[in-house]
Amino acid sequence: MIDPWSSAIIDYEKLTEQFGIKPFEDFKKDIENPHILMKRGVIFGQRDYGRIVKAMREKKEFAVVSGMMPSGKMHIGHKMIVDQLNWYQKNGADIYIPIADMEAYSARGVDFEDSKELAIFEYITNYIALGLDFEKDNIDVYLQSENQIVVDLAYILSKRVNFNEMKAIYGFSGSANFAHMYAPLIQVADILHPQIKECGGPKPVVVPVGPDQDPHIRLTRDVAERFKSKYGFITPSSTYHRFITGLTGDKMSSSKPKTAIFLSDSPQTAQKKVKSAKTGGRESLDEQRELGGIPEDCTVYELLLYHLTGSDDELKEVYHNCKNGNIMCGECKNNASSMMKNFFEDFNQKREKAKKKAQKILDRESKC
Amino acid sequence: MIDPWSSAIIDYEKLTEQFGIKPFEDFKKDIENPHILMKRGVIFGQRDYGRIVKAMREKKEFAVVSGMMPSGKMHIGHKMIVDQLNWYQKNGADIYIPIADMEAYSARGVDFEDSKELAIFEYITNYIALGLDFEKDNIDVYLQSENQIVVDLAYILSKRVNFNEMKAIYGFSGSANFAHMYAPLIQVADILHPQIKECGGPKPVVVPVGPDQDPHIRLTRDVAERFKSKYGFITPSSTYHRFITGLTGDKMSSSKPKTAIFLSDSPQTAQKKVKSAKTGGRESLDEQRELGGIPEDCTVYELLLYHLTGSDDELKEVYHNCKNGNIMCGECKNNASSMMKNFFEDFNQKREKAKKKAQKILDRESKC
Repeated sequence: MIDPWSSAIIDYEKLTEQFGIKPFEDFKKDIENPHILMKRGVIFGQRDYGRIVKAMREKKEFAVVSGMMPSGKMHIGHKMIVDQLNWYQKNGADIYIPIADMEAYSARGVDFEDSKELAIFEYITNYIALGLDFEKDNIDVYLQSENQIVVDLAYILSKRVNFNEMKAIYGFSGSANFAHMYAPLIQVADILHPQIKECGGPKPVVVPVGPDQDPHIRLTRDVAERFKSKYGFITPSSTYHRFITGLTGDKMSSSKPKTAIFLSDSPQTAQKKVKSAKTGGRESLDEQRELGGIPEDCTVYELLLYHLTGSDDELKEVYHNCKNGNIMCGECKNNASSMMKNFFEDFNQKREKAKKKAQKILDRESKC
Repeated sequence: MIDPWSSAIIDYEKLTEQFGIKPFEDFKKDIENPHILMKRGVIFGQRDYGRIVKAMREKKEFAVVSGMMPSGKMHIGHKMIVDQLNWYQKNGADIYIPIADMEAYSARGVDFEDSKELAIFEYITNYIALGLDFEKDNIDVYLQSENQIVVDLAYILSKRVNFNEMKAIYGFSGSANFAHMYAPLIQVADILHPQIKECGGPKPVVVPVGPDQDPHIRLTRDVAERFKSKYGFITPSSTYHRFITGLTGDKMSSSKPKTAIFLSDSPQTAQKKVKSAKTGGRESLDEQRELGGIPEDCTVYELLLYHLTGSDDELKEVYHNCKNGNIMCGECKNNASSMMKNFFEDFNQKREKAKKKAQKILDRESKC
């Protein structure tokens, strides 16, 4: 059982074997300009991604749903989600961004008002600053608690989900409260609502998630089947990405500040954090020159791979130089931390500009 | 355990003993102009009604919440609810009328659209025709599925209700679906939402119900306690009314047309139905002259008591004439059926006029 409310280092292969997630690999050649996270294996798994590839190739309507739970500060690992949304937006997708204020309340005790504040000044601000275009008319960002279509659909769908099933999926006991048990059903509605009549009817939908969210995906796909005759739902697709390792070697987590570079960090802070991050270096310089470093075990290399190095050739060069002992951790950290500083200098300016825009976005009418 | 979704003849005394419903009797003397249903013992029980009496006496703000589940035609038994609402409206109450379209969906499979149709052309139309004044600004009728305040509050409250508790109250098993289990929580929010800030803050609230609805009341009162510190809730009060017996001697029920006089019946049909109703008469006229009739066991007498006879003296006269054998069932039926015909002649006209008004009522902004 995977528990989407707890965090743990994930065994990706086991996930693929046990839960039937298929390798993403198979589709790379079919996609015209795959996202770098696809090319670099960060996006490693999928369910039914074929229909998304087909929709993109044939320029047919399709949608991406990617929620945010406003429960803390965004860190650099979260950037990966926005990077994917940017790519999908350029590839013609309708973008739906539910803000999971209802889940934040049940899972973290955050009030709806506080969720809204946080969503605007942290999440939406960052999304804009990271390049997502909210001016387009095929993007819809909404608070769950304010989206009547979603909340009503959740209730309608919940008629064919029972306690035993939720217990089997999530391990709920009889003492689980209803807000907690009902939150996944709202998420199911988040994912399925782009396909109802008011939102343009059935279409392929993809949900890019970390593997810890797969229980929600499985539940959603099952529920979609049950309501196929009523709504004509196409079973939603999903992709699965690896999580970036934290600076300490543990999972990067907003609740453990030492593990994370926050998107609100100053360029100097971000630079410093890279300099003190855990690397895959050997015990001595001599040893490293002889045996080479271990980029697979280096959080600085991960920062390059996930975020800092746009060119695949450059990334390969770093990898081989490290492996061959041609570059030491100090030099590599210097490079990476400069890149990080540059990124944040630019990003901080964008963030300031984005704040004003962000305040108006939730006042817009929902797309459907 | 009382199951609010099934119908059964109720043992009123047992209810009062087992579930702690207090007699209404005690308050009759404290109310300036008690409703005839109070005077005649139809309203037989209450919880915490003292604070309602106090609010009326001191002309303080208080509210009545009385939902309708649009799942069929209204019968004459339902009129009693509107009669109470009329009385409360005249006594200064804020009136809240949730239309339980979410419950109608989960319990009866009625779509929201169909519920809305039925609510307008059957329920609201009848409520207007029966005299409830929707022009006042302290009356709020709404569809659950369209009231975001209520639906959001239901979710917030549901954080402190768990499956074990709902199982104990309603007998839900693991195979109960979530829509069914969640419906009572929406009803809890219906009852408590007049007390949140947006609706004017804490105030006494009374819910007039049949005793079959008491599980909902108990749950609501418990939940109110749990959120007292957050919202300042005053534990809601309730009253309990007897159900009118059906024309056949069984429970009056819309799903058993022979038991019921429908509010949409023609004057002629209604008259005929009274004429063929089960009475408390003896086997022969002679026997009845000798022993007297049994008004306690007479559905025609009940129609007089609940609906047709406004004057208590007149009602007493009928009772004693029957008991003493001075009036036979034929004559009594003739009188009652004429009164019923008169009522429906007038009511049908009012109903026609009410239809137009009814169509506009749900388009109004909710009061809070």
